[in-house]
Amino acid sequence: MKIGTTAIEDTFAEAFSMKYSRIIVTAFNDRWLNSAVSAFCGYGSSVIGCDAEVGLEKLIPANETIDRRPGASLLVFGFSKDGLQTAIANRTGQCLMTCPTTAVFDGLCDSETEDNKSGNNESKVDKISLGKHLRYFGDGYQKSKLIGSRRFWRIPVMDGEFVVEDMVGIGKGVAGGNFLVLASDQSAGLLAAERSVDAIADLPNVITPFPGGVVRSGSKVGSKYADLRASTSDAYCPTLRGRVESALADNVNCVYELVIDGTDFDSVSIAMKVGIETAVGEGIVSISAGNYGGKLGKHHFHLRELFATSRQ
Amino acid sequence: MKIGTTAIEDTFAEAFSMKYSRIIVTAFNDRWLNSAVSAFCGYGSSVIGCDAEVGLEKLIPANETIDRRPGASLLVFGFSKDGLQTAIANRTGQCLMTCPTTAVFDGLCDSETEDNKSGNNESKVDKISLGKHLRYFGDGYQKSKLIGSRRFWRIPVMDGEFVVEDMVGIGKGVAGGNFLVLASDQSAGLLAAERSVDAIADLPNVITPFPGGVVRSGSKVGSKYADLRASTSDAYCPTLRGRVESALADNVNCVYELVIDGTDFDSVSIAMKVGIETAVGEGIVSISAGNYGGKLGKHHFHLRELFATSRQ
Amino acid sequence: MKIGTTAIEDTFAEAFSMKYSRIIVTAFNDRWLNSAVSAFCGYGSSVIGCDAEVGLEKLIPANETIDRRPGASLLVFGFSKDGLQTAIANRTGQCLMTCPTTAVFDGLCDSETEDNKSGNNESKVDKISLGKHLRYFGDGYQKSKLIGSRRFWRIPVMDGEFVVEDMVGIGKGVAGGNFLVLASDQSAGLLAAERSVDAIADLPNVITPFPGGVVRSGSKVGSKYADLRASTSDAYCPTLRGRVESALADNVNCVYELVIDGTDFDSVSIAMKVGIETAVGEGIVSISAGNYGGKLGKHHFHLRELFATSRQ
Amino acid sequence: MKIGTTAIEDTFAEAFSMKYSRIIVTAFNDRWLNSAVSAFCGYGSSVIGCDAEVGLEKLIPANETIDRRPGASLLVFGFSKDGLQTAIANRTGQCLMTCPTTAVFDGLCDSETEDNKSGNNESKVDKISLGKHLRYFGDGYQKSKLIGSRRFWRIPVMDGEFVVEDMVGIGKGVAGGNFLVLASDQSAGLLAAERSVDAIADLPNVITPFPGGVVRSGSKVGSKYADLRASTSDAYCPTLRGRVESALADNVNCVYELVIDGTDFDSVSIAMKVGIETAVGEGIVSISAGNYGGKLGKHHFHLRELFATSRQ
Repeated sequence: MKIGTTAIEDTFAEAFSMKYSRIIVTAFNDRWLNSAVSAFCGYGSSVIGCDAEVGLEKLIPANETIDRRPGASLLVFGFSKDGLQTAIANRTGQCLMTCPTTAVFDGLCDSETEDNKSGNNESKVDKISLGKHLRYFGDGYQKSKLIGSRRFWRIPVMDGEFVVEDMVGIGKGVAGGNFLVLASDQSAGLLAAERSVDAIADLPNVITPFPGGVVRSGSKVGSKYADLRASTSDAYCPTLRGRVESALADNVNCVYELVIDGTDFDSVSIAMKVGIETAVGEGIVSISAGNYGGKLGKHHFHLRELFATSRQ
Repeated sequence: MKIGTTAIEDTFAEAFSMKYSRIIVTAFNDRWLNSAVSAFCGYGSSVIGCDAEVGLEKLIPANETIDRRPGASLLVFGFSKDGLQTAIANRTGQCLMTCPTTAVFDGLCDSETEDNKSGNNESKVDKISLGKHLRYFGDGYQKSKLIGSRRFWRIPVMDGEFVVEDMVGIGKGVAGGNFLVLASDQSAGLLAAERSVDAIADLPNVITPFPGGVVRSGSKVGSKYADLRASTSDAYCPTLRGRVESALADNVNCVYELVIDGTDFDSVSIAMKVGIETAVGEGIVSISAGNYGGKLGKHHFHLRELFATSRQ
Repeated sequence: MKIGTTAIEDTFAEAFSMKYSRIIVTAFNDRWLNSAVSAFCGYGSSVIGCDAEVGLEKLIPANETIDRRPGASLLVFGFSKDGLQTAIANRTGQCLMTCPTTAVFDGLCDSETEDNKSGNNESKVDKISLGKHLRYFGDGYQKSKLIGSRRFWRIPVMDGEFVVEDMVGIGKGVAGGNFLVLASDQSAGLLAAERSVDAIADLPNVITPFPGGVVRSGSKVGSKYADLRASTSDAYCPTLRGRVESALADNVNCVYELVIDGTDFDSVSIAMKVGIETAVGEGIVSISAGNYGGKLGKHHFHLRELFATSRQ
Repeated sequence: MKIGTTAIEDTFAEAFSMKYSRIIVTAFNDRWLNSAVSAFCGYGSSVIGCDAEVGLEKLIPANETIDRRPGASLLVFGFSKDGLQTAIANRTGQCLMTCPTTAVFDGLCDSETEDNKSGNNESKVDKISLGKHLRYFGDGYQKSKLIGSRRFWRIPVMDGEFVVEDMVGIGKGVAGGNFLVLASDQSAGLLAAERSVDAIADLPNVITPFPGGVVRSGSKVGSKYADLRASTSDAYCPTLRGRVESALADNVNCVYELVIDGTDFDSVSIAMKVGIETAVGEGIVSISAGNYGGKLGKHHFHLRELFATSRQ
């Protein structure tokens, strides 16, 4: 299968189930909103080495946020509910509570447990503590406020009060959706990756948690060093062609991986499809994807099926 | 003492000795350099809640970097040598090695131990492992290269090779230099803080590690909750006036703190002086500073002495 | 009438009928798109001193543009059809055709004359020449391409071909919608203006053509110098209080004007309303508007009616 | 001659003598400074179609500007003194005086006539009117202020006063320095052009006035259409290979031109050299330059001499 001159390999991306939350942060203006988002989302590439995978889902115009100020929706993915709670509470305390003028809200107010979806009448949103935990910083001077079924904390700080929601919902997301861009040279590869990241940035429900949205140090499971769980994906390293069993065609000299985390299988599928369609073109030899033989991750995204679907 | 209409309080900032490294990252172009810097510096506000205090010292034009590509100098502060090594290696592995086209170098090649400075003939730079640690990702395919006395690792990755210096120097820096901007209202406070952060950003040897360079959730030591070591600085919270013994004059309604980490006492002094001179003006009632009575931190920056010095 | 503590004065903005076009520019990626937009929109504040009033209406995701590349919608206003054609052709030739990778399309394809709207069966869109004019740069090597009823020119350039639509539609717009932000001090005024501009930027069909969206040198008709048609709006200059008949309350020390051009009366109304709602707050004494007694401009926007409407 | 794998053609760039001024604009903070710069520099690509060639020379830290606020140095080039005066006065009136918080100063205070340099004792700086012209906007309320030999006007505006220097110096500069990047494909060409523009942006005394610093619609003198003075540079259009006498090697498929204006021959030489060194590399087949046979422009920059010089 080809899109234009770019081959779409007959393979699949293997992704994992993870817990996620959607955090809404608002601020007085764009400068401080950006400062907060940038601090909160940093150092959140991969749960292999970071406490969470974190990214900006989208900016929200002031007239669509709860406090009518410019806002941003942030997605945070982690393996466990506890890990997610710790990561979000600590990142919020260090990067949002400290930041001038910010407030923090739950972006999953309507999230519901699977029980509920399958007919259970009582709505039971699975939640983790956020303001409930951070409020103690107020040293007893914090106040709570209940609006409908949502509780907010007002914690006194030096520029007024930090408003933060008591609990935030968690959902079951899909992390590690991915595809590989195999390019004839670095220029073509870089520009295809840039285009692709920019196109995915316009989509809802997904983030690309790596720096600038891209990974160039793809990894395989295992290593010749016994205590390392992962090492460079030698089959995809152009400089190792001839020394290892390479997966690269002769005219491929640069490979980039885009990793996508999303709130559900379909959102990740759409992002992969849009990302691939945007990446293909002159200098892009083929598109592949990363998997572990299908045994580690629950979710499989077969590249060619992404496009089969779209033709219906 | 006053600068214009703004009072400079007769107090001092109390700062701490910390270890630091200067990491130089280069990349193919500004887009990818910025992606790397943004990822590396995020979630690095304070060693209280983060693994290190991290910030961009300055951008470096391509013709001044070792590999003639656009670069950035990043400063990383930590309490111990071990902690610093762990933080830098992990942040480099997650945020720089993963990022398309980056390379990583030591920015303290000429740093020397104090022994050496006091006459010891043999140069002994105190160093921590960086490439020496990350190289194993190469799964045996990494190569080392010695240029003069500096060793670099070339680790095969999907877009070519990741070049990273074997060891990076560490020095003794000063963290927690600070001053408080006491404003009549939030608009005046925010704009003074912005101006001040922008002016400090032009100075060498210092970073402002908090989001956007500013803290609004200043803290005091201790809390009414036994297991909390710190809580909101109630004396500086405008909404608590009347309920606590306030440090705020009647016409102060918003306070921001700028925290400065630097490579040495003088660099932090200069940054505090420039920052204060830039912050004062209409709507800024006074400038103060945060300390712990002088018993916790080794370095004391008396505000008025900053300006006495300059008059010489 | 008040919104919060900010008074809404009982006055109106006076705006003018102008011709306008909507130009869609696309480019290979965001960097070059931004370069094109920035060059095209500069030096286009006011038809008093510039050839046109120009601004970015909105960015368009790649999957919504005609050539599936990232795009921007630009609005250009001028007094006459001829003036508009000259300004757009020259700006396109200097700022878009020269810029790597761009293409230029009509954003008013469905615009129709009023005749047509009132029942005339034959669609007659009023149009001006764009590609029809620029094509000669191709020195005879240009080619045209007809897709449906739209004709495009492919002009050979050094990076391939510059694609530009033959003709672009023009419509009847409304230019000079405005309101004045009267602030107690410059900090409050600046931040209110910034917030307001950012909020209006999220709205369709409007631009704010002045630098950063704001005017601080408001003018009145006439001058003591006989050959000048306009001079500083002395009644709104804080430093002239006491020397002239001031329009400023004692507690107003800084005034900013937001000027809005839009494709129709309602779009300008909405932008004024959103802009005012975002501007009001602490430190903003009142909101006023600029007019010439109602005799020069066809369109009158009564401030209080903006909010009356919204209460229905 | 080759740099790496890129050939440096044995040709020269032909540039012109033009008048120029250096305008210093300062503002309250970076946001408004950028708004002013962006408006002032737009639509200033080439004197062929614009009133002047305009660009940002460099940003200036607050502690280095005359009013201790963040600043920018802008260079403006025009064919005649009169044309330059008109362009600068109009652009300042439309784009700087209107912009919140700005002030405007002469950046060539020490400029001197050539007479003076050659021994004439009396300093005679050649100057054009700026504030002297704009002051009338003040409607009689403007005030002048003499500091040393420099006169400034304080024009009352709605946010206080607009400070603008009475006269600004003009010098004799060099416009149209250039080189051509001949690339194997668009990706390589674009990225080389980006790198090159970014490197030149770090240099003093030069600007790259075209959108994003680059031209893709290179032109030749004359046209088959009698009334056109210039038309597409067909010899450098990849799509015309086979139809015209092409200057392009078989493996060149994309060409970009960088145009550089500078205050003197040496500054343009350095910028061309740095720009070429940064552009060369993988995918860049050769570097050429644009000239008119040497008869139109006074200044000739022979590409190979740029590098000969550097080897001394």
